[in-house]
Amino acid sequence: MKPYPMMLGPLAWVLVLGCTTAREAARPIPPPARSVLYQYSVMDSLLAGVYDGDLTIGALKQHGDFGLGTFNQLDGEMVVHDGVVYRVRANGAVHVAADDDRTPNAFVTWFRPAGTIALDGAVSLAGLKAELARRLRPNRSYAIELRGRFATMTARAPEPATRPYRELAAELAAHQHVFALANTEGVAVGFVLPAYVTRVSVPGLHLHYLAADHASGGHVLDFHATTGATVRIMELTGMDIDFSTNPQFDDADLTRDRQRELQSAESGGGKS
Amino acid sequence: MKPYPMMLGPLAWVLVLGCTTAREAARPIPPPARSVLYQYSVMDSLLAGVYDGDLTIGALKQHGDFGLGTFNQLDGEMVVHDGVVYRVRANGAVHVAADDDRTPNAFVTWFRPAGTIALDGAVSLAGLKAELARRLRPNRSYAIELRGRFATMTARAPEPATRPYRELAAELAAHQHVFALANTEGVAVGFVLPAYVTRVSVPGLHLHYLAADHASGGHVLDFHATTGATVRIMELTGMDIDFSTNPQFDDADLTRDRQRELQSAESGGGKS
Repeated sequence: MKPYPMMLGPLAWVLVLGCTTAREAARPIPPPARSVLYQYSVMDSLLAGVYDGDLTIGALKQHGDFGLGTFNQLDGEMVVHDGVVYRVRANGAVHVAADDDRTPNAFVTWFRPAGTIALDGAVSLAGLKAELARRLRPNRSYAIELRGRFATMTARAPEPATRPYRELAAELAAHQHVFALANTEGVAVGFVLPAYVTRVSVPGLHLHYLAADHASGGHVLDFHATTGATVRIMELTGMDIDFSTNPQFDDADLTRDRQRELQSAESGGGKS
Repeated sequence: MKPYPMMLGPLAWVLVLGCTTAREAARPIPPPARSVLYQYSVMDSLLAGVYDGDLTIGALKQHGDFGLGTFNQLDGEMVVHDGVVYRVRANGAVHVAADDDRTPNAFVTWFRPAGTIALDGAVSLAGLKAELARRLRPNRSYAIELRGRFATMTARAPEPATRPYRELAAELAAHQHVFALANTEGVAVGFVLPAYVTRVSVPGLHLHYLAADHASGGHVLDFHATTGATVRIMELTGMDIDFSTNPQFDDADLTRDRQRELQSAESGGGKS
């Protein structure tokens, strides 16, 4: 490592920040040689209430065109599809995120599915999980896209958190909005990950929804798809994690196992 | 110990690193811009008895010049130092590994430490852990090199496992050899990782030893260093995992939490 100044004054901060931004802007989009899950920060920090991160959406898009996450201040759910980063807010509105928006936790890949699977008949979230458990290897990792028309789609998005930040389970219990969408057409994007990623990532099936008209979406809690839904799957061969550089991250209690809190947060157990 | 630069101010450290975290696009020897821990496979699979992997030592060396691991068939302990991959066998012999040797689990980085810390007086493994706990941030990850003369160094290496492979705790209890080295000079290399990497990696301090005369070494179980030992540390800004592609990996039970087995395996609890 090269020597660096021991103390950084305000001017140095500006210079270094400028350098970071310039480099991020200049980053070439990598040729997708590895089918890797890129993630910023680790799931346990979100569970612990670390809702601000330093990764810009512009920089996130250098790591993939497909995935999910959240935004600083826990202000909405992130859906990344076809290279566009969408934000679903607690009022139900969906907007394209700005490149200088930031995220405390996001998970993306370059989505190159091997093929399309037509699902037979109607399917629920539980039915899809069972189908995937039959088709996929439990120790491997996958990106998954579910496309269809849904008789019902239960999705949620949190209001922006206010400081001092509470831990995620408590924050969602108080401030998530649940949308009971009906007869909606769209795409759910996400991942199926093995049990051993607990703490750094989200094991099991994790999906965020975006309606085709971009008028609704959110973290998927449940759904019933009518006939004709399709699934596209890509196996992930690795996982690249960039640790959070945000000071909140250093202050968080990341020592204990938060598996139960994760299950509550993911399943909407704390829903209002 | 002298004050360590990384402790002068978290933001200074973070921002200077932020200036150089551009991610390499392709895999062949990356310019070491990111200070990333590269690992092949996950720790839970080794605990479950997956002792064969598909990564060659030649390929591993494309990901770093410093680190540790094991070899296929659990045949010895790996020490990677100054770009050379050493194998410490159960009979105590140390050899340079061949490029076409393979590993089921390995952990490497491009080691570019910020500076050297002189340890005051004698230090034991427990003393070093306590010192690192005072100096390092618990939620961050570090590569660490300990260099010195050791009045005692307790290290181990396993015999090659025979099929059907047993789980790691049982295998080590039956077939690890413990070396009680005395008055040995050398280097211990490894990592200090946070609690949340449990299951994918090894939390806490994990060191493998290589004597300066390359005549002994192994997984460090304990030591007492005489005066004059030095430590070099590098903060890791991320972690890249390539999942194992070996068929054994798919067959392993990776559903349960093996934290206790890990502690037993790492501390030599099952030592013969």
